[in-house]
Amino acid sequence: MPGFISGAEQLVRLVGNSESEGRIYVRHNPADLYEMGSAAPEPDGNLVMLYYLDGFIDAGAAGRLLTTHLMTTLEHNVVASFDLDSLLDYRSRRPIMTFVKDHWDDYDTPELALSLLRDAEGTPFLMLAGLEPDREWEAFTAAVRQLSAELRVRLAVGFQGIPMGVPHTRQLGVTAHATQPDLIEGYRPLVDKLQVPGSASALLEYRLGQEGRAAIGFAVHVPHYLAQAAYPAAAERLLESVQRVTGLALPADALRGTGRPVRAVPRRAGPGRESRVVTPAVAAAE
Amino acid sequence: MPGFISGAEQLVRLVGNSESEGRIYVRHNPADLYEMGSAAPEPDGNLVMLYYLDGFIDAGAAGRLLTTHLMTTLEHNVVASFDLDSLLDYRSRRPIMTFVKDHWDDYDTPELALSLLRDAEGTPFLMLAGLEPDREWEAFTAAVRQLSAELRVRLAVGFQGIPMGVPHTRQLGVTAHATQPDLIEGYRPLVDKLQVPGSASALLEYRLGQEGRAAIGFAVHVPHYLAQAAYPAAAERLLESVQRVTGLALPADALRGTGRPVRAVPRRAGPGRESRVVTPAVAAAE
Amino acid sequence: MPGFISGAEQLVRLVGNSESEGRIYVRHNPADLYEMGSAAPEPDGNLVMLYYLDGFIDAGAAGRLLTTHLMTTLEHNVVASFDLDSLLDYRSRRPIMTFVKDHWDDYDTPELALSLLRDAEGTPFLMLAGLEPDREWEAFTAAVRQLSAELRVRLAVGFQGIPMGVPHTRQLGVTAHATQPDLIEGYRPLVDKLQVPGSASALLEYRLGQEGRAAIGFAVHVPHYLAQAAYPAAAERLLESVQRVTGLALPADALRGTGRPVRAVPRRAGPGRESRVVTPAVAAAE
Repeated sequence: MPGFISGAEQLVRLVGNSESEGRIYVRHNPADLYEMGSAAPEPDGNLVMLYYLDGFIDAGAAGRLLTTHLMTTLEHNVVASFDLDSLLDYRSRRPIMTFVKDHWDDYDTPELALSLLRDAEGTPFLMLAGLEPDREWEAFTAAVRQLSAELRVRLAVGFQGIPMGVPHTRQLGVTAHATQPDLIEGYRPLVDKLQVPGSASALLEYRLGQEGRAAIGFAVHVPHYLAQAAYPAAAERLLESVQRVTGLALPADALRGTGRPVRAVPRRAGPGRESRVVTPAVAAAE
Repeated sequence: MPGFISGAEQLVRLVGNSESEGRIYVRHNPADLYEMGSAAPEPDGNLVMLYYLDGFIDAGAAGRLLTTHLMTTLEHNVVASFDLDSLLDYRSRRPIMTFVKDHWDDYDTPELALSLLRDAEGTPFLMLAGLEPDREWEAFTAAVRQLSAELRVRLAVGFQGIPMGVPHTRQLGVTAHATQPDLIEGYRPLVDKLQVPGSASALLEYRLGQEGRAAIGFAVHVPHYLAQAAYPAAAERLLESVQRVTGLALPADALRGTGRPVRAVPRRAGPGRESRVVTPAVAAAE
Repeated sequence: MPGFISGAEQLVRLVGNSESEGRIYVRHNPADLYEMGSAAPEPDGNLVMLYYLDGFIDAGAAGRLLTTHLMTTLEHNVVASFDLDSLLDYRSRRPIMTFVKDHWDDYDTPELALSLLRDAEGTPFLMLAGLEPDREWEAFTAAVRQLSAELRVRLAVGFQGIPMGVPHTRQLGVTAHATQPDLIEGYRPLVDKLQVPGSASALLEYRLGQEGRAAIGFAVHVPHYLAQAAYPAAAERLLESVQRVTGLALPADALRGTGRPVRAVPRRAGPGRESRVVTPAVAAAE
């Protein structure tokens, strides 16, 4: 497997730019981080993997809306479940519990899984979705790279909303970045150079690139006055970008809304609280 | 063991309400999370387990006061020690160290253990006490369920203070919740339905319920203007509730106080700082 | 190995002052926390180990400046790499990533390693440097103690800046603490007794002391109005103290500066952000 050693040595080898970045010691075997489900697709070399990890900047909840939209309107089956129990800091993102009268009635179990979905024409694709890990980003991205190598994923695509000083009355812009420039021809660069806080998603794209694998990230520009709200139009723009680059036939109707207002439901409380957004379509599906 | 698979598979099977919640992948064997001590009691099917995990809402420090009171006035021996070293985020709850003149003199080692105590009549009971884990809530609650199944615990009882718009001049109210309604007959429900941030304690009660095990939680109503203080009267109300449902003979005198003021000692600093409270009785015992 | 049991039992035995502190259950073998590099020095019983863990109080960035200074002006080779991937809470200290036009160009991999350096006269010494772990302080300090026992380290020396109500116009004071009083003769105690939040560095010194090993900590007094800035003069004072007690010939010229201003570069963002400081010397070396 390119750029990866598993098993007894439990080392994560990186195809780094520099000598010093060549190798990182990781105690645990990345393969122990997940358990295979029953839905593994046939590795025909034509699979696309979408991914969204909840916990970093996502203006207008654009990435989360798109993810929830796909996971609720398309049938999905688990390919691999990650051991989020040991990757998560529960006290910084306390899962929501439901109390009814005199007993605990429900617990919103945090999840992080790779699922198999099918688009409108029956074409299979993968979706990695769930909470961004607090720990073991190297082991986690190594595990995802291992899985995507085994499943012969041809392209990985991430997406998010970023806040921008733009109005909502014009078409929303989309910035693209990729491990190979030809993957995103036609997209205009936004900045020359920028140093920003990292995320597990960005690290995944970066490490895939170091291995010579194809990965793309889309960032839709969300008007800053809508950044904290749920903005389905931003999710729709991401869906268009994903559709164009992957060739998948993804249903957009439900995202476009029906004129009914967006209902926001708090999903997680405590420090780091973020809101879960339910569009009419999602609400109908629930 | 009901609802639990350990060993090679290292899966945590949940007796969930829904299909989707049936199984969660957990890398580590829950049995590795603790080490047995020398004080294991005879599993005669009559044991009660009290539990208090420090780190969530506890108005008036009611739960902590009661726990400290029991652990200092009654002899206790360790049944099982948990690997808090890997469950704790040290930097968010830095343990207190004592510096004397020219050297470090003491370190307040964080602890999480299941202990065996005896009440005033010599009846043995268990007490799970320590810091709420930051990580691995599923593995942790599975470990506690495993221990309580092995020790044939007949009833688990948790307790805490919650802030409420009530005066201290009337008797403090107590809300009860349980995995079986008949365990808390006579207690009046406070709300119909509520979504709240979860805690390791609430998850434990919920998971015990999913296995058909008996568990109760008491929440004493603490006047909101006393929520940040140490309020022994609230701990005393919890003690009464615990006593009534368990039949244990728990000493209350020391909690009732002697007219001397309550002294508050900072126990942990940094973000997430909380105060440790020493009642006259505890102070005398130290 | 004194005060340490590794292997199958995976217990960390502490040479504590009290019975109750005699033993702590730790799931993982501390030896698994690190991987040996190629640069292990000959254990001749004369090695000194300096250490600085980034993430706790360090007024004037004095400790970080000194560490960066030594690691950039002296050649260094890795003796042991720690599994920071599982010790770090990435989301509370997101590593910086560099974005260039249309792709992720660099990732600032968090590191924690024990390195071998040589002073101006060729004398070898050890330097433990990197991010303070969020987790497993007991296993981590046990691992460092294990390494320093194997390498027959004769003295461990930590250092930091602490804020103080002093002017910058006088010579900066230095407080010293040690596991053996004769190591720091001549230094005047600052306080009689103090309870403070712990750190991995302080715990290391404390645990070394419990084993009867020699360890010293220096804290330079930084004027409170400079505590948030980078203050090379404070790092220079630490260097003097370290030099005097160890006998090492450490280059100070670069730290003394050349009259050029200090440039501060943000190193890590998000909650817990701290600034990385680049002195003219470091900048030249980069």
